[in-house]
Amino acid sequence: MKDYIIHNEWKIIEKGFHKEDNRITESLLSIGNGRTGQRANFEEKYTGDTLRGSYVAGVYYPDKTRVGWWKNGYPEYFAKILNATNWIGINVAVDGEELDLNTAKINLFYRDLDMKSGLLTRHFVAELSSGKQIEVHSRRFLSIADQEIGAIRYSVKALNFSGEISFQPYIDGDVVNEDSNYDENFWISIAQKIGCCSGFVCVETKKTAFQVCTGMSFKTKLNKQIIDIEAKGIEKEKYVGAEMKLQVKQGDEVCIEKYAAIVSTLNHSKNKLQEATEKTLRRASDKGFDKLFADQEKAWAKRWETSDIRIEGDVAAQQGIRFNIFQLNQTYLGDDERLNIGPKGFTGEKYGGVTYWDTEAYCLPFTLGTAPQMVSKNLLLYRYKHLQKAIENAEKLGFTDGAALFPMVTINGEECHNEWEITFEEIHRNGAIAYAIYNYINYTGDKEYLAPYGFEMLLALSRFWSQRVNWSDEKKKFVMLGVTGPNEYENNVNNNFHTSYMAVWTLKYTLEAIEFLKKEHPILFEDMVKKHKLKELNETSRWKKIIKDMYFPYDFNRKIYLQQDGFLDKELIPVSQLKPEDRPINQKWSWDRILRSPYIKQADTLQSIYWFEDDFDRESIERHFDFYEPLTVHESSLSCCIHSILAASIGRQEKAYEMYLRTARLDLDDYNNDTCDGLHITSMGGTWMAFVKGFGGMRVKNGKLNFNPFIPDGWNSYSFRLNFRESHLEFIINQSDFRLVNHSKTDIELVVHGKQYHLPAKKELTIKN
Amino acid sequence: MKDYIIHNEWKIIEKGFHKEDNRITESLLSIGNGRTGQRANFEEKYTGDTLRGSYVAGVYYPDKTRVGWWKNGYPEYFAKILNATNWIGINVAVDGEELDLNTAKINLFYRDLDMKSGLLTRHFVAELSSGKQIEVHSRRFLSIADQEIGAIRYSVKALNFSGEISFQPYIDGDVVNEDSNYDENFWISIAQKIGCCSGFVCVETKKTAFQVCTGMSFKTKLNKQIIDIEAKGIEKEKYVGAEMKLQVKQGDEVCIEKYAAIVSTLNHSKNKLQEATEKTLRRASDKGFDKLFADQEKAWAKRWETSDIRIEGDVAAQQGIRFNIFQLNQTYLGDDERLNIGPKGFTGEKYGGVTYWDTEAYCLPFTLGTAPQMVSKNLLLYRYKHLQKAIENAEKLGFTDGAALFPMVTINGEECHNEWEITFEEIHRNGAIAYAIYNYINYTGDKEYLAPYGFEMLLALSRFWSQRVNWSDEKKKFVMLGVTGPNEYENNVNNNFHTSYMAVWTLKYTLEAIEFLKKEHPILFEDMVKKHKLKELNETSRWKKIIKDMYFPYDFNRKIYLQQDGFLDKELIPVSQLKPEDRPINQKWSWDRILRSPYIKQADTLQSIYWFEDDFDRESIERHFDFYEPLTVHESSLSCCIHSILAASIGRQEKAYEMYLRTARLDLDDYNNDTCDGLHITSMGGTWMAFVKGFGGMRVKNGKLNFNPFIPDGWNSYSFRLNFRESHLEFIINQSDFRLVNHSKTDIELVVHGKQYHLPAKKELTIKN
Repeated sequence: MKDYIIHNEWKIIEKGFHKEDNRITESLLSIGNGRTGQRANFEEKYTGDTLRGSYVAGVYYPDKTRVGWWKNGYPEYFAKILNATNWIGINVAVDGEELDLNTAKINLFYRDLDMKSGLLTRHFVAELSSGKQIEVHSRRFLSIADQEIGAIRYSVKALNFSGEISFQPYIDGDVVNEDSNYDENFWISIAQKIGCCSGFVCVETKKTAFQVCTGMSFKTKLNKQIIDIEAKGIEKEKYVGAEMKLQVKQGDEVCIEKYAAIVSTLNHSKNKLQEATEKTLRRASDKGFDKLFADQEKAWAKRWETSDIRIEGDVAAQQGIRFNIFQLNQTYLGDDERLNIGPKGFTGEKYGGVTYWDTEAYCLPFTLGTAPQMVSKNLLLYRYKHLQKAIENAEKLGFTDGAALFPMVTINGEECHNEWEITFEEIHRNGAIAYAIYNYINYTGDKEYLAPYGFEMLLALSRFWSQRVNWSDEKKKFVMLGVTGPNEYENNVNNNFHTSYMAVWTLKYTLEAIEFLKKEHPILFEDMVKKHKLKELNETSRWKKIIKDMYFPYDFNRKIYLQQDGFLDKELIPVSQLKPEDRPINQKWSWDRILRSPYIKQADTLQSIYWFEDDFDRESIERHFDFYEPLTVHESSLSCCIHSILAASIGRQEKAYEMYLRTARLDLDDYNNDTCDGLHITSMGGTWMAFVKGFGGMRVKNGKLNFNPFIPDGWNSYSFRLNFRESHLEFIINQSDFRLVNHSKTDIELVVHGKQYHLPAKKELTIKN
Repeated sequence: MKDYIIHNEWKIIEKGFHKEDNRITESLLSIGNGRTGQRANFEEKYTGDTLRGSYVAGVYYPDKTRVGWWKNGYPEYFAKILNATNWIGINVAVDGEELDLNTAKINLFYRDLDMKSGLLTRHFVAELSSGKQIEVHSRRFLSIADQEIGAIRYSVKALNFSGEISFQPYIDGDVVNEDSNYDENFWISIAQKIGCCSGFVCVETKKTAFQVCTGMSFKTKLNKQIIDIEAKGIEKEKYVGAEMKLQVKQGDEVCIEKYAAIVSTLNHSKNKLQEATEKTLRRASDKGFDKLFADQEKAWAKRWETSDIRIEGDVAAQQGIRFNIFQLNQTYLGDDERLNIGPKGFTGEKYGGVTYWDTEAYCLPFTLGTAPQMVSKNLLLYRYKHLQKAIENAEKLGFTDGAALFPMVTINGEECHNEWEITFEEIHRNGAIAYAIYNYINYTGDKEYLAPYGFEMLLALSRFWSQRVNWSDEKKKFVMLGVTGPNEYENNVNNNFHTSYMAVWTLKYTLEAIEFLKKEHPILFEDMVKKHKLKELNETSRWKKIIKDMYFPYDFNRKIYLQQDGFLDKELIPVSQLKPEDRPINQKWSWDRILRSPYIKQADTLQSIYWFEDDFDRESIERHFDFYEPLTVHESSLSCCIHSILAASIGRQEKAYEMYLRTARLDLDDYNNDTCDGLHITSMGGTWMAFVKGFGGMRVKNGKLNFNPFIPDGWNSYSFRLNFRESHLEFIINQSDFRLVNHSKTDIELVVHGKQYHLPAKKELTIKN
C-alpha cells in the first residue's frame, strides 16, 4: 500500500519527488493513445531507478521460451509487445554539467497527469553540484486526435546564474526489454538520419520484421521567442541526437518544443515509412504544440462525454474511477481489430502486452457500455481471425475435427504461455470467448453476428468441449478431468464447476445458434455444414447427452455447488482467521501449501453465478457467496469486481462498496505492491462493471435495460452514461432519488427495480430511491 | 530400439563404426571406478557427434536454476556433478595430417568394453586423405585398485608408408557442461605445468571451490622398445600438451603409454594437491601399464566373486545382467559416505549426477546383497547427514517443529529440483527413505542403527507426515491432498494410495522404534526426547489417530485400492489398445492428455504392494496386478523390475520374464531411445532385484532368507551369490533342481518354498524344483 498520490478529481498528482517509488509513479502517470503508449519517464537523463518504456501496439517479437522442464505441447515462443524506440529524450546540461534528478538537489518537484486531456506535466527546481539552479517545466502528450504524433514542451529557466544551457533532443532505438528471456536485443537498425532541426531512427524487429520509424523535429525559444540555433548532429547505432548550446542570462527561460512522429509498418508500407514519418512531423510542426493540444483536449472531451463517471462527495472514489476509465480509453481505441487490450496495457513489460481472457470477461462490458458498437465487435473479430490457429493449437494437444482451444496468452493467435497447469488446463477461457459472443449479441441485439462469425466460433468451441469431457463409468455422468479454473490456486483438478458450467452452456448456446441459422439463414447454414463437415445429428446428439448428464460436484448439506471434486476435504478456515504475516499467501506461502489450502485467488464458482445469475435464485446466490467469499483472498486484480457485483445483487451494499474500493484504487494505492510493473489495465474494466452493474444494478434482459441502483452511504451523488443500442442514456442518482435522461432521438423501454418504464426521446425520468 | 551391440557373455562389442550411434556407444562403454567416470570417447581428435564427458564423484556446482514461472519455494540452484578435465586426449597426426575418424576412411573398426576387467579396447585401420593407412590399438581403464589412476596404451602402426607420426598427449580442463543453464564455464584455472614427459592442469569450481588436479605422464615406444623423444610443451588456458614427432618406416609401430592422476580436494588438502598428483603419477609410471592392469583384473575379480550372476543358455540375458552389475559396481564402491548413485552415474550429464529416491528404492537391495554391510550403511548415512537440511527444506514449505522433507534431487542435502508438482508434491520419497532404514535393518539385523541415526530420521519423517495430512470433515478421515505419486503421469492428486500408505507405515515404524529405544536404550531415548523436544504423548497420539483413521481410496466392486481419488472417472482403456503411433505417450501426447489418461508411468499402487506384500493376500495382489499392469506404459526405467517381481510372486512366470528382459537390456538395446544421454544406472539395481527377488524369490522374513525360485524356460541354469549377515551363499538352479551352497563359516537357517532348512557351514543343499 502507498498513499503519496494526492487525491484530486481529475489529476494524478505527485508532490515532492518520491524517488524510491519512481517506478510506481512512472506506471501511474503513463500516457497513451491506443496506438502508442509510454511510461512517465523523464525526458532528461536519469540515473536513478527507472523502467524506460515506450510501446507500439501490435509490434511484437516471439521471444524464445524459457522453461525449466519441457512438456510436450509447450510453445516455442512467447510473443511480447516490445519496448520500442524512446522518442522523449532531451538531455540538458548547464555549463557542461548534465541535469540528472538522481544527483541534483531538488528544491521543488511536482508531477501530474491530467486525465481530462491526457497531459503529463512536470515542474521542478533543481540545484546542480555547481550551485546553479534551474526551474524546469515540461508538458507532454501522445495525441489521440492524430495518433502518430507525440509532443513535448520543455523549458528551463536560469534562476541564479548566467551561463550556457545545452539541450540534446534525441531518438534512441537501442532498446532492450527488461524481461527479454535471453538478454537479446530484438531490434535491428534499418536507417537513421539527423539534420539541422529534425531526424529519425528506423528499426526493425528480428523475425517478425515490423518496422518502426520514429522521427523528431524541434523548435527552440528564448523567453518565448523562436530562435535560430545551430544544432550539432550526433549519431550512434540506432540513435540520433542534436546538440544545441545557448548562452543565457539569469532569469532567461529557454524552451524546446519537440515533436515526434511514431510510424510503423502496421499502418504503412515499408517503402513509404520514412515519407510518412516526414509528413507526420511536418503536420505536427506546422500545427505547433498549442494547436495540437487543443485538438487533444477536444478529442478527450468527446471520449469523456460518453464514458465519464462522476461522483460527488468522495474525491478518492472520483479519482479512482476516472483513473480506471482514462487508462482504458488511452489503451484501446477500438478502431483496429488487430489490436487488443493487454493486462498491463502499455504501462510496463509484464504479461508481454498480449491478450488474455481478461478482454472478454472484464473489458467487453466497458466497450459495450461506453463505445460505439464496432469497438466491441472488433474485439470479437480479433478472436475470430485467430480461429484457425486455435484449431491448430487444439490439434497440438490431441483434439481433432475442428475443435478449437484459444490460447491462454496470444498476440497472433498462437499460444505463448508455457506452464502446463495453465496453458493446457485453464480452458475456461474458451467459455469466456463463447460468453463474449452471447454478451455482445445480448447487449447490442446484433444477432446477425452469429451468421457466420459467431456460429463458426461456437461450433469449434463446442467441438472442443465435446471432446474434452469423458464418460465416467463410476459416476454415470460426463466428467471434466484435469482443469484449472479461474482460481489459479488450484491446479489440475477434476470437475471444476465453472469450467464444466461454461462447457454445458456453450453447447446449449451453440444449439440455439444452429436453430437460428437454420431458420433465418438456411442457405448459409448449408454452407456451414459443408465447410465445417458438421455431422449434425451425431454431433448435436452427443452435445445434448452432455448437457443432460454433465456432472457438477454438489454439497447436499450446504446446498452449494463445489468448486471442484474433493473441495470439502480441505480445512475450511476463513481468510479472516489467517495471521497477517501469512498474507498475501502468494508471497508468503510455498506453492504446495497454497494448493492444499481452500483459499481462492479470484471468483471461480462465483464467476459462473455472476454470468448466469438468472439460473440461480437469490437464496442460492447468497449461499454460494457466503461459502466462497470468506475463503477468497482476492490476490488477483480480477476478483473484487465480481464479488462487488454479486454482493450488490443480494443487497450487501457495504460489502459491495468495500470490494469496489479495492478494485477502483488498486493501482493508485498500490494495493498489491506491484504497480511498479505497470497498471492492471484489464481489471479496470472490472472496476467499471462493478460500478455500473454493482451500484447501478444494470443488466440487459429480454432486450431491455434493467437497473437496480443504490448509492453508497456518504456519497452525495453519482452519474454515468450508457450507450445502449440506438439510445444514449444518462444515469444520475443522489441519496433521495435517481434520474434517467434519454439523450438520444429514440424512445426506450426500461425496467427499474422490476418495474417497466417508457422513457421518450430527449426526456428524463425521476424515480424515488 | 537398437541392435548393433554384439551379444557376448563378458563384453560389450561394437563391430564397425556406428557413427550415428556414437553417443549411445559412448554411454554403453563408459568406464569408472567409483571416484571417477568417463564416457567412451576417443583419445584422438574427433569432429563428429560426441559428448566428451569425464566426471569426478562429489565435485559439483550449483548452477543457477532455469525456470519458466517462478513458484515460492523453488530452489535457487540445481547442483550438478560437473563435466571435468579431459585426461584421455592424445592427438595423432601423420605427416602433419590429423587423425579424425569423422573424416578418415575407416577400413576396420572394433570397440569393446571387457566387463571382467573394466578395460576399454579399440582397434581400427584408418586411411587418411593422403592415402596413408595406420592401424591403431588403444586400451584404457580407470583403476579400481588405485582409484586416482587412469592408464592408456595407444599404438599406431604405419601400414603403407614411411614418414612422420606425431603424438600430442594433453590434459584439457577447459570443459563446459552441455546442460549448463546459462552456457557458463564452471571451472577457473588454478595452476598448470608442462615438462618433458609429464604435466598437469589444476582447476577449481566456481562457488563450491573444489579443486581437481589432473596430471599426465607418458612413455613412448617404437616397436615395443622405450625410446627417448623430445616433446615440445604446449600451453593454453587450462590446457597442457606435449608434441612429439617421430620418423617411422612402413611396418613400424609407435606406442604411447599415458598415465593419468586424477586427484581432488575431496581427498586431499588444497596445498598438497599438486604433490599428490605427482606422487600418484610416479606410482603409476613406476608400475607401468601391465602391472597396473594386473591389479585392475585382480580387483575386479574380487568384486565379481560376490556379485556375478551367471546364466547358461541365453547369451543376451547373460550380457544384460552382467552389464547391469558391472555398471553398478563401477559407479559406486561404497567406501565414501559423501558419495551416492546418480541416475546416470558418470555416463552423461542428464539428471546432474545427483541423488534421487532411486538409491533407496532400487539400489540399496543390490548393495545389501552383494557388498559389505558398511556400503549399505554408508548410503543411509548419506541421508542422515542431510537431516538438518531436510528440516530446513520442510520449513521453507511451511512445516515446523523438526519435520523433514528430503529433497527430490540433491547432492549436499539442499533441494535442486524445480518443478512444483515434483519438488513439493512427490513426497513419497520421504517414505522410501524411511523404508530404506527398515530394509537395511531387516536384511542385516543391525537394529542398533536405530540408536540414534535411524530413530532421528524416522522422527523427523513422521513429524512431516503428521503435518502433511489433514482431517477431512467430509470424509471423517485423515486425507493427504496435493501429491504426486511414483507415477509422475498424475500430478497434484488427492489421496495417492502409495504416498498415504508410506505415511501410515512410517508412523507405525517410528512408534516401534520408540518402543525399541525406550526398552533397549532408555538413557539415549531420554537424550533424544530432549534434543528433539519430543512431546511424546501429544505427538504419538496424533500419529496413532492418523494410523487408525487414514483414508485410502478403495473400489468396493473390484476390491482394489485406487491409485488416487477420482481414478475411476478415467476411461480405463488398456495400453494394449493404444495405437502404436501413440507410443511412447510421453513423446507423442501433450502433457494434459497424459494427465487425463489412466496410463501409469511406473509402479505406483503396486510399489507399496511390492514393499508390503505381507499386508496383502495373494488374491488381492493378483487383483491389483491385473487392474494396474494393463494400464502401465513402463515409460520409467524403474517400472519393469517391480512388475517382474510381483508377477513372479503370483506365479506369472512369463510376465516376470518379459518384464525382466525389458529392464535388463534397457540400455544395450536402447529401449527408450535415450541411451545417448547416458545409462540408467539406478534402474540397474532394479534389474538385480528383479533377478534375485523375482526369479530367485528371495525375501528376508523374521531374520531368515526365504527363496521361492523358478527358472525361465529355455535357460539351462542360472546362479548368483548373496551376502546375508554372517553368511555368504551361492544359489544355483537348473531346470530340475537347485542348490544352495553355504560358503561361509556359520550355519544358516533357510526357508525354501515355505519349508525350513538348516544349511551348515561350508555345506550345500539340493532341492528338486
